[in-house]
Amino acid sequence: MSNKAYFYHAGCPVCVAAEDNVAKAIDRNRYEVEVVHLGDNKARVAEAEAAGVKSVPALVLDGAPFHINFGASLADLK
Amino acid sequence: MSNKAYFYHAGCPVCVAAEDNVAKAIDRNRYEVEVVHLGDNKARVAEAEAAGVKSVPALVLDGAPFHINFGASLADLK
Repeated sequence: MSNKAYFYHAGCPVCVAAEDNVAKAIDRNRYEVEVVHLGDNKARVAEAEAAGVKSVPALVLDGAPFHINFGASLADLK
Repeated sequence: MSNKAYFYHAGCPVCVAAEDNVAKAIDRNRYEVEVVHLGDNKARVAEAEAAGVKSVPALVLDGAPFHINFGASLADLK
């Protein structure tokens, strides 16, 4: 059974690089990865924040937030 | 054929969490992941630095550095 993973981003160059490399490298047999663009989908900023996400790009695996490099602060996406 | 990926860390709690989650989630059919403890293996700090790594934990995929959260600065491991 695959776990749910979330990749939060905002379309920034740092985000795109992280998506193309890290998010795409995740084993799809183990994780179902949902890619969420927080700039286009501001309603989900609160969900990312609740998972502990402070900046994008970030990957949430099994409920734990992993910030990947730094693209933009979550506060700037509100 | 699998590409080479490097996970650089220093044994810190942030590093261990990133290894247990992000590094382990990488698709092993696509990447051969080498885990390098820079605290125990200071000779390889220069190699990480050359790949653009500034802090640990960091994952280098296809030559590009992805810093995952923040555990320790590379400068502090020299």
